Amino acid sequence: MEGFTHFNEQGRANMVDISEKCETSRTAVAFSRVKMNDSVWEAVREGKMKKGDVLSVAQVAGIMGGKKTSDIIPMCHPLMLSKLNIEFEMPETGIIDIYVTVKTKGSTGVEMEALTAASVTGLTIYDMCKAMDKGIELGPTYLLEKEGGKSGYFKR
Amino acid sequence: MEGFTHFNEQGRANMVDISEKCETSRTAVAFSRVKMNDSVWEAVREGKMKKGDVLSVAQVAGIMGGKKTSDIIPMCHPLMLSKLNIEFEMPETGIIDIYVTVKTKGSTGVEMEALTAASVTGLTIYDMCKAMDKGIELGPTYLLEKEGGKSGYFKR
Amino acid sequence: MEGFTHFNEQGRANMVDISEKCETSRTAVAFSRVKMNDSVWEAVREGKMKKGDVLSVAQVAGIMGGKKTSDIIPMCHPLMLSKLNIEFEMPETGIIDIYVTVKTKGSTGVEMEALTAASVTGLTIYDMCKAMDKGIELGPTYLLEKEGGKSGYFKR
Amino acid sequence: MEGFTHFNEQGRANMVDISEKCETSRTAVAFSRVKMNDSVWEAVREGKMKKGDVLSVAQVAGIMGGKKTSDIIPMCHPLMLSKLNIEFEMPETGIIDIYVTVKTKGSTGVEMEALTAASVTGLTIYDMCKAMDKGIELGPTYLLEKEGGKSGYFKR
Amino acid sequence: MEGFTHFNEQGRANMVDISEKCETSRTAVAFSRVKMNDSVWEAVREGKMKKGDVLSVAQVAGIMGGKKTSDIIPMCHPLMLSKLNIEFEMPETGIIDIYVTVKTKGSTGVEMEALTAASVTGLTIYDMCKAMDKGIELGPTYLLEKEGGKSGYFKR
Amino acid sequence: MEGFTHFNEQGRANMVDISEKCETSRTAVAFSRVKMNDSVWEAVREGKMKKGDVLSVAQVAGIMGGKKTSDIIPMCHPLMLSKLNIEFEMPETGIIDIYVTVKTKGSTGVEMEALTAASVTGLTIYDMCKAMDKGIELGPTYLLEKEGGKSGYFKR
Repeated sequence: MEGFTHFNEQGRANMVDISEKCETSRTAVAFSRVKMNDSVWEAVREGKMKKGDVLSVAQVAGIMGGKKTSDIIPMCHPLMLSKLNIEFEMPETGIIDIYVTVKTKGSTGVEMEALTAASVTGLTIYDMCKAMDKGIELGPTYLLEKEGGKSGYFKR
Repeated sequence: MEGFTHFNEQGRANMVDISEKCETSRTAVAFSRVKMNDSVWEAVREGKMKKGDVLSVAQVAGIMGGKKTSDIIPMCHPLMLSKLNIEFEMPETGIIDIYVTVKTKGSTGVEMEALTAASVTGLTIYDMCKAMDKGIELGPTYLLEKEGGKSGYFKR
Repeated sequence: MEGFTHFNEQGRANMVDISEKCETSRTAVAFSRVKMNDSVWEAVREGKMKKGDVLSVAQVAGIMGGKKTSDIIPMCHPLMLSKLNIEFEMPETGIIDIYVTVKTKGSTGVEMEALTAASVTGLTIYDMCKAMDKGIELGPTYLLEKEGGKSGYFKR
Repeated sequence: MEGFTHFNEQGRANMVDISEKCETSRTAVAFSRVKMNDSVWEAVREGKMKKGDVLSVAQVAGIMGGKKTSDIIPMCHPLMLSKLNIEFEMPETGIIDIYVTVKTKGSTGVEMEALTAASVTGLTIYDMCKAMDKGIELGPTYLLEKEGGKSGYFKR
Repeated sequence: MEGFTHFNEQGRANMVDISEKCETSRTAVAFSRVKMNDSVWEAVREGKMKKGDVLSVAQVAGIMGGKKTSDIIPMCHPLMLSKLNIEFEMPETGIIDIYVTVKTKGSTGVEMEALTAASVTGLTIYDMCKAMDKGIELGPTYLLEKEGGKSGYFKR
Repeated sequence: MEGFTHFNEQGRANMVDISEKCETSRTAVAFSRVKMNDSVWEAVREGKMKKGDVLSVAQVAGIMGGKKTSDIIPMCHPLMLSKLNIEFEMPETGIIDIYVTVKTKGSTGVEMEALTAASVTGLTIYDMCKAMDKGIELGPTYLLEKEGGKSGYFKR
């Protein structure tokens, strides 16, 4: 099963040994798009001007979700995140784009933390809006960029 | 802020009152697609024939993630899930489709549990394969079907 | 050790048997006060007019904290909360008052859920403001009112 | 794969459907034995007469661990426990016996909750004593008795 | 919104970047007071002489709560605590004082860990005694002292 | 109470101060045995050849359980695990042996992480098989070996 790093000699999943890897600064940026109907989108956008809006709840959820990554993704190492920031863009009617930047100084990357935070942010937007639109679509969700570590720089 | 059910009189988010809602049987089916390059996809498919494969780890993660929904999504009510099942399809090269069925007997629906389980399943596939392909795409993720509760039947 | 309900025959703590108690509607209202210096208080109040303000983060934290009660307080039974709402008042300069209402339909009361949510809300306000004022004071925190269950109605 | 109830039609694990099962009263009693050298055992026993002793920490841990069962054991349904009690016996030098009784009113049994609480209790005894004796042995751990549900009464 | 460190450029909350901050030894001491009626206070004090007393349960809860801080407080960084100690004083009838000392070697302070542990300790005292006195008051809770980090020494 | 390291000056449990301890590489290996009747054992062994087998679910559970150790065992310090691997042996009919290896680079050992992972692995095997055999026995569970730290090398 060459290529996969998560399997041990018995062919079963394990948490790979990172004890010999260097502690370096690592950054990852993930992206996720949420698509909804126009009237919900308008309601979310107006909410942004008010207290307690959809996006601010989603963002708190995303940050807390990013911190739970190693509890949610079985083979993820626990990590001390040093930064987790979430920004939103609403580039056109019906679209909310989520950008998550995560930093750590450690022996393994933070791609999963960024992707998990982005997914939880999107799921929370769905939850806050589902009474108005059950057809909301989450994704695509992907890694935009990563820096640091042996595998080096990646940019989509 | 008509239409949103998650805000209180101060315009802030709250966990809506479901104490007057009926306990009925509720089902939700969520879907999520994972897109990867062909060689990783082949490796995952072969893994299916062996112990400890990618999909079986992803599936355990998805089930455990679905049970964590009310801990991850801020305004979700805690719920006693009575069933959570995940099935995979690989309809064409490069595509893994995730179907999650969740059931409960309770006062609120299980859409978020199904969507969260589907997302965590996809994230885990990404994690298991990211050493081979950092460009894997998660989504679209959406609700396929729901049944039970006042808002009734929904099918995409 | 009469009077305490949390100890077993060996004199050790246990989770008391509620299997014979009735499922009734139960409500609890908790209060917590946060005292800070005037300039921080002004900054928080202005934040209320903007997105991402201190109180909306604190409120999401309080709701999520309330749901974690049985995971935080050793002898608390897990409970299906049917409502959790948090409201703020700023009755005078330097004071933020937190009111938490929790409802359930179950065999035990929700006092601890309301008090835990109120405490987490206050702690989060501290965290968001501590760069400006390390002397912020949390409390008093107490039960304002409870309804339902054998011990009946309580009002402070 | 007849006999196993935790696998779906694809041969993968799932959380079995309990939505058609009756809500009945269910009880389970689990047992776990801890074996340690005589001097540690004496120290633990003396500790029982003082505040903050080993067994009282272990017992709080066991109760909290029992409540986490569905978060720890992948295919366990979340359950509202109505009682969780832990008792200790020290039948002879070097032996601490742990008895855990769990009750619920629900659609599935509480064997796993009792066994998990017993295991966490034992692990905590190990942790509290390991500076003095790294050779402590945990187990055997088994189900002593269960009552309620379709599979009926079991006694070892 | 000068003064607040928890907001990003969009005015939303984030987990601030500590990747450039030094790893130094950091200590924080928090205080919390619990006020109860005299008869409950006597019962708690007597319990101190016995196994399984209120304060020892509260203390285990406080330690475990302190470790959960970054899971409870949205913008808190995960931290490797190197010490967490809780002491009680009962300076006069009706009063229990809680002192929590937390240490770490890291890039950010442990004030929130100390305050969270103190609050959870108090909440657990409430829970253990509420059958006898629903009017128990928690607080004031505040930071007594902190050391280490750029903002330096603070003493109330 | 000489010999115990988990008690403070008031005789109560605390999380001992490790801030002066060195960061060294630490390894621990734990063992746990599961005993079941022959027909279940055969079913588990055959399952190994298929997707979704009992042992692969148990193994994912064990890895995730190991990461939760400081959340489950009250006085355990949070730790950044750098490796967690689980292997199975089936040395004779009716016996499944679990071997867990954990590594970290830190100020305290990983014995508890290895023992907790081994226990959760065994508990999950029980859960997956309990429909066929309620009499399955878990244990003995013990530390096989540890390396690193002031107390040095231990081998059973």
